[in-house]
Amino acid sequence: MSKLQGPLNNVYVIHYDFSDTSVDEAIAQFTDMCKDLTQVGLEIDVRASEQESLLVFVTAPRDVLRLAVYDLRVKDYFHSITQEHPDAAFSDCGVDGDFEAEDLLSMYHLVNWSKANGGAAITPGYGKWENVKSIFPIHNESANAALLGHMSTRLFLGSRDLDRIRDLFGVKVAFYFAYMQTYFLFLSFPALTGVYAWLCLPYYSPTYAIITLLGCTVFLEYWKIREVELCIRWNVKGVGRAKVNRFGHSEQGFTRVTYVMRQLVQLPFFLFAFLCLGVVITIVFAVEILISEVYEGTYTGYLEYLPTIALAMSLPYINSFLEDAAVALAEYENHRTQDEYNVSVSQKRFILSFIANYLPILLTAFVYVPMGDTIVPYLEGALKQILGTPAGSQLGKQSFHQDPDRLRNEMIALTVTGQLSDMFEELILPYIMERARNWYRRYQIRNAYLTSFEAVAPDDPTEKAFLSSVRRQAMLPQYEVQEDIAEMVIQFGYLALFSPVWPLISIGFVVNNWIELRSDFLKICFEHQRPHPTRTEGIGPWVSSLETLAFLGSISTGAIVHMFGTSFTEKERVGSNILTYLSEWSSWWTLPVTILVSEHVFLVLRAMVRFMLQGIGSEFIRREKENELNRRKRHWDMQVNMSKVEMEPSTLEKPRTSTMEDLLIED
Amino acid sequence: MSKLQGPLNNVYVIHYDFSDTSVDEAIAQFTDMCKDLTQVGLEIDVRASEQESLLVFVTAPRDVLRLAVYDLRVKDYFHSITQEHPDAAFSDCGVDGDFEAEDLLSMYHLVNWSKANGGAAITPGYGKWENVKSIFPIHNESANAALLGHMSTRLFLGSRDLDRIRDLFGVKVAFYFAYMQTYFLFLSFPALTGVYAWLCLPYYSPTYAIITLLGCTVFLEYWKIREVELCIRWNVKGVGRAKVNRFGHSEQGFTRVTYVMRQLVQLPFFLFAFLCLGVVITIVFAVEILISEVYEGTYTGYLEYLPTIALAMSLPYINSFLEDAAVALAEYENHRTQDEYNVSVSQKRFILSFIANYLPILLTAFVYVPMGDTIVPYLEGALKQILGTPAGSQLGKQSFHQDPDRLRNEMIALTVTGQLSDMFEELILPYIMERARNWYRRYQIRNAYLTSFEAVAPDDPTEKAFLSSVRRQAMLPQYEVQEDIAEMVIQFGYLALFSPVWPLISIGFVVNNWIELRSDFLKICFEHQRPHPTRTEGIGPWVSSLETLAFLGSISTGAIVHMFGTSFTEKERVGSNILTYLSEWSSWWTLPVTILVSEHVFLVLRAMVRFMLQGIGSEFIRREKENELNRRKRHWDMQVNMSKVEMEPSTLEKPRTSTMEDLLIED
Repeated sequence: MSKLQGPLNNVYVIHYDFSDTSVDEAIAQFTDMCKDLTQVGLEIDVRASEQESLLVFVTAPRDVLRLAVYDLRVKDYFHSITQEHPDAAFSDCGVDGDFEAEDLLSMYHLVNWSKANGGAAITPGYGKWENVKSIFPIHNESANAALLGHMSTRLFLGSRDLDRIRDLFGVKVAFYFAYMQTYFLFLSFPALTGVYAWLCLPYYSPTYAIITLLGCTVFLEYWKIREVELCIRWNVKGVGRAKVNRFGHSEQGFTRVTYVMRQLVQLPFFLFAFLCLGVVITIVFAVEILISEVYEGTYTGYLEYLPTIALAMSLPYINSFLEDAAVALAEYENHRTQDEYNVSVSQKRFILSFIANYLPILLTAFVYVPMGDTIVPYLEGALKQILGTPAGSQLGKQSFHQDPDRLRNEMIALTVTGQLSDMFEELILPYIMERARNWYRRYQIRNAYLTSFEAVAPDDPTEKAFLSSVRRQAMLPQYEVQEDIAEMVIQFGYLALFSPVWPLISIGFVVNNWIELRSDFLKICFEHQRPHPTRTEGIGPWVSSLETLAFLGSISTGAIVHMFGTSFTEKERVGSNILTYLSEWSSWWTLPVTILVSEHVFLVLRAMVRFMLQGIGSEFIRREKENELNRRKRHWDMQVNMSKVEMEPSTLEKPRTSTMEDLLIED
Repeated sequence: MSKLQGPLNNVYVIHYDFSDTSVDEAIAQFTDMCKDLTQVGLEIDVRASEQESLLVFVTAPRDVLRLAVYDLRVKDYFHSITQEHPDAAFSDCGVDGDFEAEDLLSMYHLVNWSKANGGAAITPGYGKWENVKSIFPIHNESANAALLGHMSTRLFLGSRDLDRIRDLFGVKVAFYFAYMQTYFLFLSFPALTGVYAWLCLPYYSPTYAIITLLGCTVFLEYWKIREVELCIRWNVKGVGRAKVNRFGHSEQGFTRVTYVMRQLVQLPFFLFAFLCLGVVITIVFAVEILISEVYEGTYTGYLEYLPTIALAMSLPYINSFLEDAAVALAEYENHRTQDEYNVSVSQKRFILSFIANYLPILLTAFVYVPMGDTIVPYLEGALKQILGTPAGSQLGKQSFHQDPDRLRNEMIALTVTGQLSDMFEELILPYIMERARNWYRRYQIRNAYLTSFEAVAPDDPTEKAFLSSVRRQAMLPQYEVQEDIAEMVIQFGYLALFSPVWPLISIGFVVNNWIELRSDFLKICFEHQRPHPTRTEGIGPWVSSLETLAFLGSISTGAIVHMFGTSFTEKERVGSNILTYLSEWSSWWTLPVTILVSEHVFLVLRAMVRFMLQGIGSEFIRREKENELNRRKRHWDMQVNMSKVEMEPSTLEKPRTSTMEDLLIED
């Protein structure tokens, strides 16, 4: 049995748990698995792990891995993902991967792909592999540390830095960091204009709102170009259609029409979710207002925003039922690839958190502030009827006062607590959890509730450090990049939908994201299994989500600017009651006009930005097209010469095609 | 000298006019031209033509043409337009074109392309070839007649019929017919619902408006898929970027940013054009109303719409100044290819005719009808002051009556006269013009103002019929497909913007387009030179124009339905003046709400239609992707086997790649 040691590109780990199975069954299944693995040429080392589980180290001999890497390149060529002909000369010996992730991707395929595709078909948690808890590559800790150190010295990550992330964790993860980086750069713009707006412009300034939305549009259009650039740089254009079917995907009688029809089930689902969440949020909201209006004890100032904070903290849990339903729905939608399935789940989750995050602010802006005069006293009356007692002081209609700062405070509370709780959930909680788990395990062993595997089969001392690290990794959760993207999309939504409420919000985002970019990397390195280095063509449908948010932003900020920018100042000016009424009334009936104008200003600006950015395009992409042309030409010349050699060697001197100086063609 | 005869795929005609040049100069230039042509391997026959001009028949020997066709295919492969490897074995002898247009396209390139690209660089009307009036391929009259006969027997044109058009006139023209056909099919839907709306629904029915816009959206989304299908079918995907530079295009210091900046000059231009046309149209409009209001003689009913008709007939001429400016602007924009330049000119013309066509209707709908009460008496007063006399009867404020049918009549007048005058301009006028020209020529010869060339150099009797046909073709104008597309886009605009005004309008369009489809073909065959069979990737930016029209339609029809659908019925119900005033007032302030609702209903419906149609996608495109995959695989196997043969023949039996049963890859 070979010694297991440090960073290994040709190893995948299978975490096998036999705690729920009888010994005979487990042995039979395990033998089966080993047979499947050895059949595709893989070698196996087994080590004990914690709590009745095994770590199976699957190693590919050098030639097996080289051929797998080569085959993948050939398949890429077949699917037109790369235009580069793999060199036919290597078809017997294969090639080494250009970087770690390329080797590991082929390792993943060898372990996970179906037998028809040349893999061992180990699908963790599915079918006969229910006892396989996970399969994962081993973290290259020194490379992780080196890259983390490098990142901490750089203010911005350039293409080369992103390449390094791609080399380590694959294209999918690298795309997330590329998006984060571009988004971070963009955020510095609203942060700067935000400071200016805060200092020099009136509250709820329409100028600031328009400039921010324009910035959002420029960012999105630029990102679309950048995404294509990176697709070309990383050779993943069209990789989506080349993916293997997801385990459990059934083609039987499943036409494109069925596919679309099943997707439409989302509509009633989201309607239902909107009603559910809407009711919960509205109730919490109403209670919160009543506390702030009716309760007049000490600490009112603190208590007032307590429910909002409680809401922001508790919403993730309220969501969980709906999220389960969303997962079931995504399952029902029968997506062809695992990737599509993951995206579908995350998009559904995103819409749910969209409702949960933005609805309180929308309620504040468009129900509470403008109509609080009418609603709050009514609520108080209802409350008194329910309680039967005159709770608190007797507040009459006239004593109620809208709090125009409430919208701002609500937004600050939601974003700040949201970001803090996200960070807590992502970084601190997992750390505490792991500590607790470790402590509990030691406690169990100490008190002999559990026999330590070290007592049964002690580790080889040379492997000890390595094994303890892998054991730790085996217990970690899998990393899902979609969740992190969704978080950033929600943040973008705050900016697009509510920027004029508090122009300084972007500064908070800039600070948060500078940390987030590094802490996400940290998170992947230390609190998750190393992700499968799979490939994608970008951040996929999230771009449409972002575009939708920017468009909704033109409506929302238009309305906010209209209602808060004019009505309050007018109200102060106008003393008489009837005039107040009229001015309020006029403010209401001109609202649709403002929205109409704001929306169309946005649409025209967006069209212009698109036109300009697409016109300017990307120098990189143009150069790449030229390279492609030259590559094809070279390949062609080679072929023509080859066929010439075969037919009559004398004509070799005069290859026809090289006389075409300029390769541009037609009309 | 060879005898010239009937349909020829290897001949291009150069129409050379030496009427403005001295004999010496003409001879020198002509010799130059012959040298350029013979240098690329072309042969020359010269025949006399009318009015001091020559017809130069440029013939390509079989091997020259075969090599040119082959080279074009190789270039297509270099540019990734086709994925099919041309067979290297033919690199010395070339191949025959698969259809007429492929041969003729290579002929066109041999004559027109720059010398660096392997052509003779004959650019009619430019540079030193100012005397070259045109270059054109000769109509294949029997094939034209056969296809025309075939088309007249078919109600719809299928893909095979479109293939035949492509074979004859090239991809660009075929795309126009494909669009026409799809559009014609779609029109049957609003025609049917239009009849239903006319019979069963109230005037200005919102239901009908929504259904029509939904239909428009479905049509556009379907067309986008269809366009890609045809691109693949005709192997022209990506052909745009492979085109040669336009004559006169300068790269010097011309970055993408300059390009975009120059395009932005369009904005002030269109603002200016809008003001110009707006003033003219408004004046005509005002005069027209005054005639109908003030003039009370006989034939009022007929006279009333005379100015509208005059406007519709005369607008093309009013436009001409602006069109010249648009052409100059397109020239200034310095487009890289002739194709982009043509599209740019047509798009500018389209916006001009957009203003000219739709502004009168918009004025009627949103100025005259709702505000006529106030404006018309004022206009009358102004007129009286100008004329000094109390013209016509003394109409007071109270005697003025809006004509709610006016909108409908305006639209009918504009569309019907527009279509009729188009048809007159396209079909009947050219016929008359040619007849007149012929008559005038004979008249000149008869009266010895002109010597007939037949007297100088009589035709060979075997060539006589052929030559007289080519002489006729040399006098015809070039066909520009963009103009025909623009006409169809304008028509689509009437439907999208004003459908509820007169639901039966679609029936008129159906009838018109059934004729148009055939008459356009007739027009190309008989009233234009055979078009250069150039290639495009579809109808290009017109798709965006159509989408913009559909989007504007959601605003326009929303407003029309709101103003005409409710205000009139309400007015009838409400007797009292103050109530009328209030209801009118309410009708005005709810207008933005209606527009807002209508627009967003449209946006949501469009998003759903897009989602569904893109989800369903095209079976054809999927099949084509699979074919592509198999093609690459076959080519690869061939290569691997070849390299195996070279290295060690024994391993041939076991090609690695063929063991991969399923070619799907990754995660």
